[in-house]
Amino acid sequence: MTGPFAAASAVHRRDETTWAGEIAPGWDIGGNADGGYTLAIAARAAAEASGRPDPVTVTGHYLAPGRPGPVQIEARVLRRGRRFSTVAATLASAGVPVVAVLGSFAELGGYAGPERVDAAPPDLPPPEDCYLIEATETFPPPFMGRVELRLHPDELPFTGPTGPPRVSGWFRFPGGEPIDPLGLLVAVDAFPPTVFRAGLPVAWTPTLELTAHVRARPEPGWLRCAFTTRFITGGFLEEDGEVWDASGRLVAQSRQLALIPRG
Amino acid sequence: MTGPFAAASAVHRRDETTWAGEIAPGWDIGGNADGGYTLAIAARAAAEASGRPDPVTVTGHYLAPGRPGPVQIEARVLRRGRRFSTVAATLASAGVPVVAVLGSFAELGGYAGPERVDAAPPDLPPPEDCYLIEATETFPPPFMGRVELRLHPDELPFTGPTGPPRVSGWFRFPGGEPIDPLGLLVAVDAFPPTVFRAGLPVAWTPTLELTAHVRARPEPGWLRCAFTTRFITGGFLEEDGEVWDASGRLVAQSRQLALIPRG
Repeated sequence: MTGPFAAASAVHRRDETTWAGEIAPGWDIGGNADGGYTLAIAARAAAEASGRPDPVTVTGHYLAPGRPGPVQIEARVLRRGRRFSTVAATLASAGVPVVAVLGSFAELGGYAGPERVDAAPPDLPPPEDCYLIEATETFPPPFMGRVELRLHPDELPFTGPTGPPRVSGWFRFPGGEPIDPLGLLVAVDAFPPTVFRAGLPVAWTPTLELTAHVRARPEPGWLRCAFTTRFITGGFLEEDGEVWDASGRLVAQSRQLALIPRG
Repeated sequence: MTGPFAAASAVHRRDETTWAGEIAPGWDIGGNADGGYTLAIAARAAAEASGRPDPVTVTGHYLAPGRPGPVQIEARVLRRGRRFSTVAATLASAGVPVVAVLGSFAELGGYAGPERVDAAPPDLPPPEDCYLIEATETFPPPFMGRVELRLHPDELPFTGPTGPPRVSGWFRFPGGEPIDPLGLLVAVDAFPPTVFRAGLPVAWTPTLELTAHVRARPEPGWLRCAFTTRFITGGFLEEDGEVWDASGRLVAQSRQLALIPRG
């Protein structure tokens, strides 16, 4: 583990079921830690508990804003199987639960069997022709300095879509820090909300739940990411994500359920 | 609560955090209880624990086959908020955990705010022109008598697709039993696997994890359902589901991660 993300998501085992970590400064968006980041901290402890390195499917339910400072993760192995271990974890800050997690962990790779892909990576202009979101002290938030996003210039927030609200672009960690499967949990929740492109009077959309599936460890290099929303109904919206690595392979899928706050 | 599904998924509170239930005979597929059905039993106990009726987002991780017989559900409220309560639950059979659940519950409905839908219900011939899967003692399994499925005649299992593997059709409970949000958890896992239409040598695909979002309580009548798989890679496949009610409204979305067993 090297680099700012690895350091900011590090955990230290205290006993059989307890880990200590930290919500590092600057990983928040308006005072609430990025949901993919807090999920990654909790998943790192859960992976250690499981004895298996890779989150295959991880779900987080967001219970309270994550403020910078020390956190404690409780992780309990529910089943240790031949290929997968399933773990329930809760990340808490000063005794207040921030995110509850249920995940299954394994060692990815080494599979040789039938494959079929009916999709393609998003078509993006080269990174240098995409829109770099630069961090500020307010908006865009400091978090945008913790990751490097380059948005498709035709899909910038607050411009109307012709199809379903969609945001796509390139993702990497600054300084060439490698992206492992835990880093993918950040990638799936780092982009501006699709709803900002829906032409609706919606200023923010807190995440209720986020599920990420990791299919493979990414090859080094930029990730191509795309997020789409098809259903804004009943006070909810889903955001479906795909993350493809530099070799053109899908490495992660995500879906989150977010809330449209009542006016 | 009336009807066979309500009876087969009933739970009885034993103490603050424990419920008793039963995996009823005939709800299995080859000896393993349908995953949507066991999720519904656990979610019913979790909803009772939460004091809120409707599963808004529920994730199940499948740990062991569910055999007919008594089950015990442990459900623990992690947070009780203004709109949502989040609950962790485990359904066990003879002390062996079968499914671990993390869900957030609320009371659906009453929302008046921005809506936008970029999708339409699946285009299906009328139910009487679709293919009724009739239950047998072996295959199709007795479970097909617990639900009433009518498949799109162009999307029958073991016929090749021209696009992504897809299965669609009508769903209801036999005898006109109403489908509540817990019943929707059965609907999202009742159809034949999409992979049976992928032209691959895959005979079964055990579910590792299933997440369902419920957007609204369904109106009475047939549900229109569609399931699609775009990524069969790395030993995994996702199955994305949509369920629409008789009024033409999306009532549930689902995604499951299933395994391609190693040969």
